[in-house]
Amino acid sequence: MADTTSTTDARATIGLTGLAVMGRNLARNIARQGHTIAVHNRTTEKMTSLVEQFGDEGDFVPTETLEEFVAAIERPRAIVIMVKAGAPTDAVIDELVPLLDPDDIVVDAGNAHYDDTVRREAALAEKDLHFVGMGVSGGEEGALNGPSIMPGGSEHAWERLRPVLTSIAAEVDGTPCTTHVGPGAAGHFVKMVHNGIEYADMQLIAESYDLLRTVGGLEPAEISQVFREWNDGDLESFLIDITADVLAHTDGDTGAPFVDVVRDAAEQKGTGRWTVQSALDLGVPVTGIAEATFARSISGHTEQRAAAAQTFGSDLARVEVDRDTFVDQVRAALYASKVVAYAQGFDQIKAGSEENDWDVDLGDMATIWRGGCIIRAQFLNRIVDAYAERADLPSLLVDPYFADAVRDGLEAWREVVATAARVGVPTPAFASSLAYFDALRRDRLPAALIQGLRDNFGAHTYGRTDREGTFHTLWAGDLSEEDQS
Amino acid sequence: MADTTSTTDARATIGLTGLAVMGRNLARNIARQGHTIAVHNRTTEKMTSLVEQFGDEGDFVPTETLEEFVAAIERPRAIVIMVKAGAPTDAVIDELVPLLDPDDIVVDAGNAHYDDTVRREAALAEKDLHFVGMGVSGGEEGALNGPSIMPGGSEHAWERLRPVLTSIAAEVDGTPCTTHVGPGAAGHFVKMVHNGIEYADMQLIAESYDLLRTVGGLEPAEISQVFREWNDGDLESFLIDITADVLAHTDGDTGAPFVDVVRDAAEQKGTGRWTVQSALDLGVPVTGIAEATFARSISGHTEQRAAAAQTFGSDLARVEVDRDTFVDQVRAALYASKVVAYAQGFDQIKAGSEENDWDVDLGDMATIWRGGCIIRAQFLNRIVDAYAERADLPSLLVDPYFADAVRDGLEAWREVVATAARVGVPTPAFASSLAYFDALRRDRLPAALIQGLRDNFGAHTYGRTDREGTFHTLWAGDLSEEDQS
Repeated sequence: MADTTSTTDARATIGLTGLAVMGRNLARNIARQGHTIAVHNRTTEKMTSLVEQFGDEGDFVPTETLEEFVAAIERPRAIVIMVKAGAPTDAVIDELVPLLDPDDIVVDAGNAHYDDTVRREAALAEKDLHFVGMGVSGGEEGALNGPSIMPGGSEHAWERLRPVLTSIAAEVDGTPCTTHVGPGAAGHFVKMVHNGIEYADMQLIAESYDLLRTVGGLEPAEISQVFREWNDGDLESFLIDITADVLAHTDGDTGAPFVDVVRDAAEQKGTGRWTVQSALDLGVPVTGIAEATFARSISGHTEQRAAAAQTFGSDLARVEVDRDTFVDQVRAALYASKVVAYAQGFDQIKAGSEENDWDVDLGDMATIWRGGCIIRAQFLNRIVDAYAERADLPSLLVDPYFADAVRDGLEAWREVVATAARVGVPTPAFASSLAYFDALRRDRLPAALIQGLRDNFGAHTYGRTDREGTFHTLWAGDLSEEDQS
Repeated sequence: MADTTSTTDARATIGLTGLAVMGRNLARNIARQGHTIAVHNRTTEKMTSLVEQFGDEGDFVPTETLEEFVAAIERPRAIVIMVKAGAPTDAVIDELVPLLDPDDIVVDAGNAHYDDTVRREAALAEKDLHFVGMGVSGGEEGALNGPSIMPGGSEHAWERLRPVLTSIAAEVDGTPCTTHVGPGAAGHFVKMVHNGIEYADMQLIAESYDLLRTVGGLEPAEISQVFREWNDGDLESFLIDITADVLAHTDGDTGAPFVDVVRDAAEQKGTGRWTVQSALDLGVPVTGIAEATFARSISGHTEQRAAAAQTFGSDLARVEVDRDTFVDQVRAALYASKVVAYAQGFDQIKAGSEENDWDVDLGDMATIWRGGCIIRAQFLNRIVDAYAERADLPSLLVDPYFADAVRDGLEAWREVVATAARVGVPTPAFASSLAYFDALRRDRLPAALIQGLRDNFGAHTYGRTDREGTFHTLWAGDLSEEDQS
């Protein structure tokens, strides 16, 4: 532990190391809210340029070494790390830890995998230090003007961080978009699922656009208008809003619609993948997020795509649709599929919370996502209401408000999925979400046949509908049944 | 290392420890093929009962302690472990290793995760021992009468094991269903993907059954007949065959079709999940396997299902179909979706092999799956042909034989997916496979819009279709474009 005698100069409320664009904007946000902040960067130049450019926005304490940096912060110290996930984060932690004192708090505001957060928290706890995995959503702009902030970790850490975090977070209806998500890695876990939902949201938007253009015959500028109108209704959200912007944009070089000059190979940074992998471990079907992740992956397989296009052609069948009717149907399909994606995502948070004893409040998560983050939307108010009405809701789908909405759109949803299949437009997220809905409401699923097959080839046994027990049929024998319970 | 002086009594060609049903059957298979086999089990009773019951089938060397067991095997020793995956396997390895000599071979024939195999091989290599992760498929019956065997590990280990493995494996057209898959964990990796494909195969069969029953109006006994007929055509396979058996079976207690008394909550043992998780890491879209895994998971969420059924009802819409036509359409949808599932699975093996430098021969994998294993099928001969024709085939879908088959069935496939969506029968694997096909052949995907959105909210940049480079539009500024390459 550090020599604790010379802390008389410590005057910063909080410190932040790692001043790339996200860290710099977060530091400015903190300073603008009236908090004294010590700032540090491995290469000092970024620190000095921050203070030179934006020093008049608030009270920055410039520091050149980690020792100076640590010494500048009031105890128990609150230190935010904003560097690349993985080894760079570990490197900073390793350098920091010997300089700290008991009860100090280290906050990782990067996009860490929650398994890393579990590991780091355990390691720091051994040294009487508090580690906070903190999800921050909102991109550069959000970091500066108000992100959604999802901190995990101890109550001690939350109490120390709360004044700063509540002041810098986005605010909706007077409520800040941050709360103590839960102990341990709860914050990074919830941020991961947020990003998974973001994948699904974007894929659903992409499928809507594709259908409106290819089946509905609308041009990008017209589709932009459709999205603007949708943004006045119950689909109102940041992503719908910027979709309208992107589709309205004309490429300066070519005069073509911007969306037509962009390469159609989407990248994925890992959180969609992590979400699906975690959901598989938890036994939560997140079909919408999985299809969205795979859709990006397919788009990047350019060699396979070229071979398939050559072999099968890329033609679509033509169908006649009434344009206005079809626009409404696509809106209904988008909304219903979105309900499924959020239902699945909230199921995953619930399962992760139960698995890890995090006691995450689902309504609170919807509350802090209403502003600041990428998936911010009116929609989330309905989710807040749903969990306020019934905290143990088995699925968002069965909340009366969402159930009504899905019922109202159901015929349109079916029609859109059927049409896409006939025409040849891939709508994996629409189709998969509808299949999930139809599976969930089904009285009998053909999983019974799968259980029969598994008992036949592997003696895996099965349950019966009419009594308790574990049964096996002697398939290679006289077909009699053994009770193996 | 062991005292190597007292090996004069070593007369067994191979040893096997872990005599539960799979291990016992594998040991009997080895003995029946004329190999002297040392047998051991933690609780000696299982060993003695094996020798008492089946001792006349071959030359068993009964051993009570691991020391006796090891001493009974010719050097370099080949020792097969067939115990539960995970900690039990590690426990046996830890006990065995001190008794072994350089160049001895330890074979894990259980269903290990390939990451564990990587770890174990590295640990044993440090002690000059060879570790073989060996996938064995075929269930109890296969283990006894001829499984498909997928060994990884060193050439040294393969040469030592080859005579035994080739003699006990299933045989098709005179070719044994085993080969050296590749170094390291290649064997367990390929076995994992095999099981993932098995998940997809079974889900597709389940969806076919469901549609024939609910839309086609056929009774289980009639559907059994349909599967029998399909089994005479290009769908001929073990799973189609036993589906006919299971659907033909009448419950002895109730007189109801067996499939109607089985609880419709399918279980999953982990390999489907592992396959999807690995595919996500490799960037290979395995949508069919993912939907099959999630479908099982949905079936087990009984509380959610009850709530959804109560909220939305379980009714299906009625449509009139011509029964014979519909049966043919479902067959076409099943076949085409199956081609997609195998195309995705073989893509995953290819990607895993490239990632790990395993140099797995895809045609060989199809060859050794033709017999013994759960997914054995005529179909695999066509895959063997496809890779023989063109080793660097970008996707099974574009092989001329499969491309023709998919083209022939395409309209039917579309019709089935559209009908299921309208009626309300969940067909996640059919629908997802069709969406994959349509995405892969598409000239322009709406992934371009996703890239535009990501650039808008996160400055993630995008590529252009008309020139090289990495670009960013100043969305909050004058909408001009920066070349950031």
